[in-house]
Amino acid sequence: MKQQIEIFDSTLRDGAQAEGIYFSVDDKLNIVKKLDQLGVAYIEAGNPGSNPKDLEFFERVRSIELRHARLVAFGSTRRKNTPVQEDKNCTALINADTDVISIFGKCCDLQVTEVLQTTLEENLSMIYDTVYYFVSHGKTVFFDAEHFYDGYKRNPEYAMKALQAAADAGAACLVLCDTNGGCFPNAIAEMTTVVCKKFTIAVGIHCHNDMGCAVANSIQAVQCGAVQVQGTYIGFGERCGNTNLSTVIPALQLKLGYACIPENKVKLITHTARYIAEIANYILPASTPIVGKSAFAHKGGMHVDGVQKLRRSFENIPPESVGNVRNILLSEVAGRTAVANKLAQLDPTITRNSPVTQEVLESLKELEHKGYQFESAQASLEIFLLKKLGMFTPFFELENFRIIGEQSRQYKQSSSAMIKVRVGDMSEITAAEGEGPVHALDRALRKALEIFYPTLAQTRLIDFKVRVIEQRAATASIVRVLIETTDGTSVWTTVGASADIIEASWYALADSVEYKLLQDSRNGNLKLQSIGMNEIE
Amino acid sequence: MKQQIEIFDSTLRDGAQAEGIYFSVDDKLNIVKKLDQLGVAYIEAGNPGSNPKDLEFFERVRSIELRHARLVAFGSTRRKNTPVQEDKNCTALINADTDVISIFGKCCDLQVTEVLQTTLEENLSMIYDTVYYFVSHGKTVFFDAEHFYDGYKRNPEYAMKALQAAADAGAACLVLCDTNGGCFPNAIAEMTTVVCKKFTIAVGIHCHNDMGCAVANSIQAVQCGAVQVQGTYIGFGERCGNTNLSTVIPALQLKLGYACIPENKVKLITHTARYIAEIANYILPASTPIVGKSAFAHKGGMHVDGVQKLRRSFENIPPESVGNVRNILLSEVAGRTAVANKLAQLDPTITRNSPVTQEVLESLKELEHKGYQFESAQASLEIFLLKKLGMFTPFFELENFRIIGEQSRQYKQSSSAMIKVRVGDMSEITAAEGEGPVHALDRALRKALEIFYPTLAQTRLIDFKVRVIEQRAATASIVRVLIETTDGTSVWTTVGASADIIEASWYALADSVEYKLLQDSRNGNLKLQSIGMNEIE
Repeated sequence: MKQQIEIFDSTLRDGAQAEGIYFSVDDKLNIVKKLDQLGVAYIEAGNPGSNPKDLEFFERVRSIELRHARLVAFGSTRRKNTPVQEDKNCTALINADTDVISIFGKCCDLQVTEVLQTTLEENLSMIYDTVYYFVSHGKTVFFDAEHFYDGYKRNPEYAMKALQAAADAGAACLVLCDTNGGCFPNAIAEMTTVVCKKFTIAVGIHCHNDMGCAVANSIQAVQCGAVQVQGTYIGFGERCGNTNLSTVIPALQLKLGYACIPENKVKLITHTARYIAEIANYILPASTPIVGKSAFAHKGGMHVDGVQKLRRSFENIPPESVGNVRNILLSEVAGRTAVANKLAQLDPTITRNSPVTQEVLESLKELEHKGYQFESAQASLEIFLLKKLGMFTPFFELENFRIIGEQSRQYKQSSSAMIKVRVGDMSEITAAEGEGPVHALDRALRKALEIFYPTLAQTRLIDFKVRVIEQRAATASIVRVLIETTDGTSVWTTVGASADIIEASWYALADSVEYKLLQDSRNGNLKLQSIGMNEIE
Repeated sequence: MKQQIEIFDSTLRDGAQAEGIYFSVDDKLNIVKKLDQLGVAYIEAGNPGSNPKDLEFFERVRSIELRHARLVAFGSTRRKNTPVQEDKNCTALINADTDVISIFGKCCDLQVTEVLQTTLEENLSMIYDTVYYFVSHGKTVFFDAEHFYDGYKRNPEYAMKALQAAADAGAACLVLCDTNGGCFPNAIAEMTTVVCKKFTIAVGIHCHNDMGCAVANSIQAVQCGAVQVQGTYIGFGERCGNTNLSTVIPALQLKLGYACIPENKVKLITHTARYIAEIANYILPASTPIVGKSAFAHKGGMHVDGVQKLRRSFENIPPESVGNVRNILLSEVAGRTAVANKLAQLDPTITRNSPVTQEVLESLKELEHKGYQFESAQASLEIFLLKKLGMFTPFFELENFRIIGEQSRQYKQSSSAMIKVRVGDMSEITAAEGEGPVHALDRALRKALEIFYPTLAQTRLIDFKVRVIEQRAATASIVRVLIETTDGTSVWTTVGASADIIEASWYALADSVEYKLLQDSRNGNLKLQSIGMNEIE
């Protein structure tokens, strides 16, 4: 029986404190679902006291049914010299209505006197009162022992008293924090061992990466008795970030014999990382351990030779176990099985060794080189594969479009689009205005096509993401546009890439419409309304 | 007297094995000079046996006079069943003509039988013969004990025999390698201690980052007696990279009391990292410890407050000690203190309690609600604050612009922009094409203004980021655009937000130009070239 380690993900709280990271409420809901699917134990999702937007999130998240994870709201100990029940932040935490609450309190004497500017005794009361308040409201409370390690180095007695106050008040876990990220593994080992020996309740670890040691420190703490690891899923957070959970989970689970997430979810580790990166508009460095594009890339000749003779020469875990792929040469077929599986869904006679599989793989690589990424745009992928198999007949053709954006001293920016499309032997020209050029183009396209395909009136765009890929050439960089559309029943995502944002958006918009019409035609719902024309198949 | 640790930089050898990294001979010469200036002990600069280009490098590098560093050529033990003096790779190593040679040899029995496909005895002879050959040619030889840790785990006796062979042959240092990056600090500690006890010659450490532990493992090895740390300067290398020396050097030198580079060079650590990143065409992640742009960026309100009351609350070393800077980010979670500090830089009479501080804080919140984010757009922030303080006079006015994007069945998307601007009582109308509407607008704006302000010709956009903020309204969502500009000397970032991407881009572009002109005017470099007009202040 493997020892269970609780994975506590703070991408949505500590991660949101990273420079350049901003989550909308929808982003947060999507990430919650994805982390739950992966099977983490806890998702720390916001600080309702300091951020009113988080209250909206906690209200909307109630409608999501979680299978694995428990949601956590985060906040601080009560203000000095204020009864806890009168502290607005504490009330906001209760209103967030989660089962679990994470409370951070200071464990370093200097922090208490210099930053909180209160007495050491008052700080202990603040810890005790706040933890006790939430425990007596039926909450599970984790105590984030802020600056614990630095505090212990200065004044071990006081640091331990702070932990004791939280334990006495009924905290379920004492989470030891290397708040400024300046500790090294051997110091972490020593101090964590002392705490684990002294307390019978669970001990957790929360590290920052300022000295590049967050992952190592977290593993070291687990080896000394910690049973909860806090971090952010791909490591971004305040300054240099937090413990990268997408590294720690496989390290603990595949290398060191602990259990973190369900066995059958381990292969989702890479996918989850890329999904979160995409939502956060965060460029996942290629060299990121485990989940990066280069994590299993072999370049040196001796490495290429070695890894082919004996996999573990240069791969300490098999890439497929975490859902990543080995990448050796351009001719090497990364993802062949995945592509073959996709193709077989469209044509069951296709196998891994069919010539078309190789052909499609090469086209995919070419498109990826041009900035496409199909991982989160399955609708575009399906249309692309159908085209490759000769199984797709377009539902319309573009004759031309023209977009005009105008701005002057007197008048605010305005955008309009004119479009001409052809369906069979009929054509339609129309125009629309919008907030921005893509909005105008989207409206004009639908307006023109609704005449032929009335079900398009049910659809609306629900997400539009723009990602600049190549950073060198500035405004001439490649742009990837992802568009999410719904018809009220299903949701699909399409992608386009180009040096021109209008062109990239156009590809994604066109795919979005084609995909809807494809589904309608499959379901027998395609009604073509136009004098003298028959239903299109 | 501090203990000296030898820093061994392999950016030019192991670093060159990273995906996407390619160095010309000139690149390598420039990096050698920069690393020598920083004061590292050894620069491993190539593998002359496997790479003929490296021979040219070793020839040209002789003309550079190094003050601190010694150059190292890297190669493998002789081929099996071949006398060392007949091995071409060994001859090439001699021809490289460095004082120091690094020889890697296998220390893991399985690697010998499966990958080298020879006997365990022959491998020991290969190690002995090769090291002895170079020692007898007067070289200092470091033995890179490939797969040492994995080998020791499987067969400690054989791993130690391999080290013994190198030591017997006269190696100056036994460098223990975690070749596939799968080890953790406690295992490294245990095995390194065994080696340091057994051998009297120097022991080194060479780690890979596949489990995110390269830095921690290297530090752990030093704490157990290793005296040489091998790595690459900003961490890139095969797969997930090597030990990041720009992290390890300050960790050892500033936190743990060792001496790695001359004291007066420590402040060059950040500059060196950015220089090498630039040459390698490598995007240094903002969150890179010590040297990243965000390494000392504070966003959370409590962090901003804390770090200002007590620096080490959230900075475990002072940023200026390594040549980096603290960056207080203004965000919805940032407080009054941060804003007051910013304002005081522009007008020293302003304090935390000045009415203007509160006013600016409220305007900032409003702008953030509209989609602005100033944390990474300090140039726009400065212009905004100057405007709020009544201290800003615009350098130009927009009369109007018009952007046209066209696409048709026959013709690819094309974008063009027409713009009219006013400077004083003069105006200029012009037009430009571009890849995408923003590119066209940027070109047209600069083209129009260069007539008045010739220094704008020095500027170019180097990054363009687009972020869609509110998702619900899809193409009518708010879009935030960040633009990074350089004039060859400094780099600044500006921001714009709007429901319309063109409008958002316009604000960022306009700020970018205003900021450049503001700097020029401050430095007395603003030359206004136009008949009948005076210099603008």
